[in-house]
Amino acid sequence: MIKSYAAMEAGKNLVEYQFKKKPLTVKEVRIKVHSCGICHSDVSAIDNAWGASTFPMVAGHEIIGEIIEIGSDVMLHSVGDHVGLGWHSGYCDVCEHCENGDHNFCSKTNKTVFSQHGGFAEEVCADEVSVIPLPKNLKLENAGPLLCGGITVFTPIIEFNINKNHKIGVIGIGGLGHLAIKFYKALGCHVTAFTSSKGKDNLLLSMGADDVVSSLDKDAIRSYGAKFDFLISTVNVKLDWNLFLSIIRPRGRLHFVGAVLDPIDASVFSLMGGRRSISGSPVGSPKNIKKMLVFCSKHDIYPEVEHFKFKNINEAIKKVRENKVRFRAVLSW
Amino acid sequence: MIKSYAAMEAGKNLVEYQFKKKPLTVKEVRIKVHSCGICHSDVSAIDNAWGASTFPMVAGHEIIGEIIEIGSDVMLHSVGDHVGLGWHSGYCDVCEHCENGDHNFCSKTNKTVFSQHGGFAEEVCADEVSVIPLPKNLKLENAGPLLCGGITVFTPIIEFNINKNHKIGVIGIGGLGHLAIKFYKALGCHVTAFTSSKGKDNLLLSMGADDVVSSLDKDAIRSYGAKFDFLISTVNVKLDWNLFLSIIRPRGRLHFVGAVLDPIDASVFSLMGGRRSISGSPVGSPKNIKKMLVFCSKHDIYPEVEHFKFKNINEAIKKVRENKVRFRAVLSW
Repeated sequence: MIKSYAAMEAGKNLVEYQFKKKPLTVKEVRIKVHSCGICHSDVSAIDNAWGASTFPMVAGHEIIGEIIEIGSDVMLHSVGDHVGLGWHSGYCDVCEHCENGDHNFCSKTNKTVFSQHGGFAEEVCADEVSVIPLPKNLKLENAGPLLCGGITVFTPIIEFNINKNHKIGVIGIGGLGHLAIKFYKALGCHVTAFTSSKGKDNLLLSMGADDVVSSLDKDAIRSYGAKFDFLISTVNVKLDWNLFLSIIRPRGRLHFVGAVLDPIDASVFSLMGGRRSISGSPVGSPKNIKKMLVFCSKHDIYPEVEHFKFKNINEAIKKVRENKVRFRAVLSW
Repeated sequence: MIKSYAAMEAGKNLVEYQFKKKPLTVKEVRIKVHSCGICHSDVSAIDNAWGASTFPMVAGHEIIGEIIEIGSDVMLHSVGDHVGLGWHSGYCDVCEHCENGDHNFCSKTNKTVFSQHGGFAEEVCADEVSVIPLPKNLKLENAGPLLCGGITVFTPIIEFNINKNHKIGVIGIGGLGHLAIKFYKALGCHVTAFTSSKGKDNLLLSMGADDVVSSLDKDAIRSYGAKFDFLISTVNVKLDWNLFLSIIRPRGRLHFVGAVLDPIDASVFSLMGGRRSISGSPVGSPKNIKKMLVFCSKHDIYPEVEHFKFKNINEAIKKVRENKVRFRAVLSW
């Protein structure tokens, strides 16, 4: 039996929950979980906020661990390898998107949390393609949140060829946003942090932000003028998107990686005047997760983490719910 | 005195209106208007729908004519040249956007209709940079609507590198949409026409559409699946944008060139799943208008036009208001 922490119904505290070890398929590996980050979408899964949860719900999809068993046809991993696992635990591997290395666009993905039991457990299984080998010098204890939060803000760098000539704004500086500051700064971009929190300024400047602005101060935002090449929003609340569009340069982009439930509500005129775009992206493909981890180990980029033991998981989740974690919670056994 | 047709107040029928010939600035040219298309935004100007109109309002910005006078520093044109004039009648010529040839992003443009008296007149003035020389073999009598309607749907071809490998959907088949069908088909694209009108199918197929679908038949739209690379919307009414996003391929785009006044109201999830974009663009720069006119003369692409005499301008505008023109009205003296 495998020990885990599960929500037995929507929104409830997690309880210790034992489930049967399942046999591996030929392409699966079994991972002993060393640590697992807590993402806001784990809370959404526990709360059934998206209507897609089944219970008992074992969430957790920012997993760092070690391979302890491999299926008979596994070619990419060996027992003893340190690996990471994120949002996806499998792909169809045969569609045009998988063939192009865009596995995250595959329409038949398995989700680490929604298709099976996730990482709030002693062990987790996943198809080998979704399991990411870790660079040797990666600092494992804080790396978990890179597998979801990290790749979510790293993917746009590749998708939109973000480079040092770009003026970037990061909207919302939590688990995703603080990693965005670090990534975009490491690229050499000018980075402005838009945050609703007070008293974080020095901390965000020390992470690499060039300036910090209140995301609620409309005059301060407006005063930038149309200067930003790329605004990345990590928030899950509705802001004045037309205002943010007004500070984007012609051909610039407002990009969503935070799951705002309210419609975007942007005016067509805000887009037309400067050929601006609004877009969104999900987590990244395995090849891009690998690129990100190399980038992180090279630039010594890690999330700011608060560590919790799995036995204190409810305390950690409470803190995540209340947005009191600076900046990402990581559980370990 | 110059004869024109002007709205003396918002929404009223146009009346004959004489105004004084103004002296040219050193960089301006004076154009004798041969013909002028009627665009929906002329109706918006007459109605003060955008709150930016001044009266008497002489609208008209799809102008074909002949240069009859040039300012002392004009270098690009000579008296006798056949030229076109569209939405913009001048640019600052010194900002980074003008320097890059992106004059349409200049923040200090003059508008043919809103900054001065437009093309529903015997003569019109404009800065030389905004005045477009016409290819010798261009058929002038139907060319007017290319200067605004045409360039509006041509610009995205350049902005987004549209090519024969793309599957395109054109939403709304009026003045802009029917030109979009012709342009995108001439590029070799697969073109689907989405229209709310019945009985146009054979006509649209003859223009180059590969298939025609009702823009109101949700099941028919949904049945396409995520197949389109690029949807261009020319409509000025709210449609089910999330439905249209659902038929766009990963990395595809829903692009607005029609001025919908309602917010776009798209869900972030519709964008995130497939890294989709929503965008908009205005008319085009002089360099792109020139490219378009060469493309039109090469591929023999012209708008379908109903011709009216200027003296019947109110009849023509009524038909435009009622969406009864197939597909663009052009006035001539």
